[in-house]
Amino acid sequence: MTFAFDITHRDPNSYARLGRLTTPHGTIETPNFIFCGTKASVKGLSPQQMRDARSDIILSNTYHLMLSPGPDLIAEMGGLHKFMGWDGPMFTDSGGFQIFSLGYGSVADEIKGRGQRHRKKTILQISEEGAAFQSYLDGKKFFLTPEGSIDIQRKLGADLIVQLDECTPFHVDREYTAKSMEMSMRWGDRSLAEWKRKDDGKQRMYGIVQGGVYEDLRRISCEWTRDRDFFATAVGGSLGSHKEQMYEVVAMCSAHIHPDRPVHLLGIGSFIDIFTNVRAGMDTFDCVSPTRIARHGWALVKGAPKERMNLRNAQYMKDQDPVDSSCECYCCRHHSRGYIHHLFRTGESLGMTLLSIHNVATMNRLMREVRAAIGANRLDEAQKEWVV
Amino acid sequence: MTFAFDITHRDPNSYARLGRLTTPHGTIETPNFIFCGTKASVKGLSPQQMRDARSDIILSNTYHLMLSPGPDLIAEMGGLHKFMGWDGPMFTDSGGFQIFSLGYGSVADEIKGRGQRHRKKTILQISEEGAAFQSYLDGKKFFLTPEGSIDIQRKLGADLIVQLDECTPFHVDREYTAKSMEMSMRWGDRSLAEWKRKDDGKQRMYGIVQGGVYEDLRRISCEWTRDRDFFATAVGGSLGSHKEQMYEVVAMCSAHIHPDRPVHLLGIGSFIDIFTNVRAGMDTFDCVSPTRIARHGWALVKGAPKERMNLRNAQYMKDQDPVDSSCECYCCRHHSRGYIHHLFRTGESLGMTLLSIHNVATMNRLMREVRAAIGANRLDEAQKEWVV
Repeated sequence: MTFAFDITHRDPNSYARLGRLTTPHGTIETPNFIFCGTKASVKGLSPQQMRDARSDIILSNTYHLMLSPGPDLIAEMGGLHKFMGWDGPMFTDSGGFQIFSLGYGSVADEIKGRGQRHRKKTILQISEEGAAFQSYLDGKKFFLTPEGSIDIQRKLGADLIVQLDECTPFHVDREYTAKSMEMSMRWGDRSLAEWKRKDDGKQRMYGIVQGGVYEDLRRISCEWTRDRDFFATAVGGSLGSHKEQMYEVVAMCSAHIHPDRPVHLLGIGSFIDIFTNVRAGMDTFDCVSPTRIARHGWALVKGAPKERMNLRNAQYMKDQDPVDSSCECYCCRHHSRGYIHHLFRTGESLGMTLLSIHNVATMNRLMREVRAAIGANRLDEAQKEWVV
Repeated sequence: MTFAFDITHRDPNSYARLGRLTTPHGTIETPNFIFCGTKASVKGLSPQQMRDARSDIILSNTYHLMLSPGPDLIAEMGGLHKFMGWDGPMFTDSGGFQIFSLGYGSVADEIKGRGQRHRKKTILQISEEGAAFQSYLDGKKFFLTPEGSIDIQRKLGADLIVQLDECTPFHVDREYTAKSMEMSMRWGDRSLAEWKRKDDGKQRMYGIVQGGVYEDLRRISCEWTRDRDFFATAVGGSLGSHKEQMYEVVAMCSAHIHPDRPVHLLGIGSFIDIFTNVRAGMDTFDCVSPTRIARHGWALVKGAPKERMNLRNAQYMKDQDPVDSSCECYCCRHHSRGYIHHLFRTGESLGMTLLSIHNVATMNRLMREVRAAIGANRLDEAQKEWVV
């Protein structure tokens, strides 16, 4: 069996469930967290360090890899798994999110820190056929169609791939959102047809739920994905302007998505967001934040105010305790808060590496404890331990 | 036995020898290479990665740690070993090299890359008592005496420490060099007296050979170190303006330094330099270059032209071979030249980390093969394998 999703337990009080998601590169337990290796590298960490931090699955971004080094080169090098030295399950997105989030002039988290703070809009035209945009690297023009996205993802060779969609911005009205959702459905059908045409048994596809913040549209989109031959479902698009609205929008989907397929929630990753959305039936999550905030000195800490602490703060200068004394990661077993503080203060990159290790390990520990809590019917208690 | 140096074999054709240098934190085989963890961190690598690359010993710079976070803080945190999580043998320098090399307006390698390319001279006054200088970080004034350097190094707690000396610049004349050497001798006596006064059995001291490029001065300086109660000898100061002169200057010392003590050559680290200076009786070496050049895309490669290759070069874009197919480091076992090229091209810091691992592993492999060659009386053959 190369692909499967087995739900082994369902929470009687919510949509939360335990599952086993099998791919040709291994089986992961769900709920689980997918770490972002945007440009075929989880920033600052080797695959070995990711494994040591007990990571199960990573993703790479089709948009970035399409621009550099290009899908043909990665195919020639034996595919993304071999190219980046990760032998476990892997996920790629469609490229759509970055095209549209950059294209509309907002700044995608993943691309922050490349120097230019204010980017010009890079999207040139969106049509039924696909999206024309310019590379943020060198201005080169690209045209991405649903078929093209699937072709690129096939060359990259991740286990789990995603249909192309238009990632609707938040500020558009209901009418635009509905039209955009409908085009995403047609793009989904084309993505699925292209995948089927070349299916070699090595990849499975997620359909994406769009519909913005509108309950009726979300329902239509859920039912559309449910009634197609997708292997899995991803909840995407605009999830609203604040956490409470995001929770509402995700909850709109719970009853209408396919109940037996894996469900991924795109781009969400705080402790509280994971507890809340696991209850809405979400099985996997991804977010750049664990490694991104690490590079700015933030450690994710179970039970800490706002879920985190900043090691750059002078209060940690002489602190001999580990970042989190309940954590068993490499950083917490070997280094003190005072040392991490010193590394950030003196600009030593090892500080970013050590906190990245800690944050990755913490997300993996969170997911293990979430799974244990679902199995023991004590999700509320676990949430109180993690989120204060 | 907490400290010892046992010479187990002497090369019949040169001053090369095999030894075992024992410290309270372990025994290392010599000849060996000491990696620079300038600010209590080998740039980009965790202690575990250093160990995985088979490193035996590291050093930290008193100058940098004196400025930040300060010796008292490190002492309070349990000393440098505990602070940085390195449990093996460790070396600290006296602080002199950076004070003087920065002070005279040259740019110390270790501080490159902190933004400011052209620094103002930071040395304020050199007197018999010591050296007054300003911090390059914040302009704060410091006064370092021989006693002060030993006191700081005692607080840092490395196994192997060094007397304070004046690091004579290259451009001064013989008269200045002689006067400077004589002051360094007096500073050495003061360093030794201060160390003896507080000797707790946990540290041993290197005396430093000065004398510039002048054979008679080098001989005087060697004999001075030989006739003092130093545990070991370090060859320092100006070694000339080019490699051949450096080799000559080091060779001037071979017959006159204490024949039974460990000898460290300060700041030297290319393959050819190591082969040449091992023959002059040098037992240990240090240099920032293995990790520094890694951050610029250079891999050290056995038998490569100029000892290295630059992975940023476009010729490696589709290269599926490891950096060095004869190398067994983590980088070479898991990653291709093409992937490393991609990481540098896209600005992913993992590229610097992986090449740093490779370069550290390569220096350790070089030293293992140098030791084996000395034992087998085939140093010339080994040199031909490494240096083309």
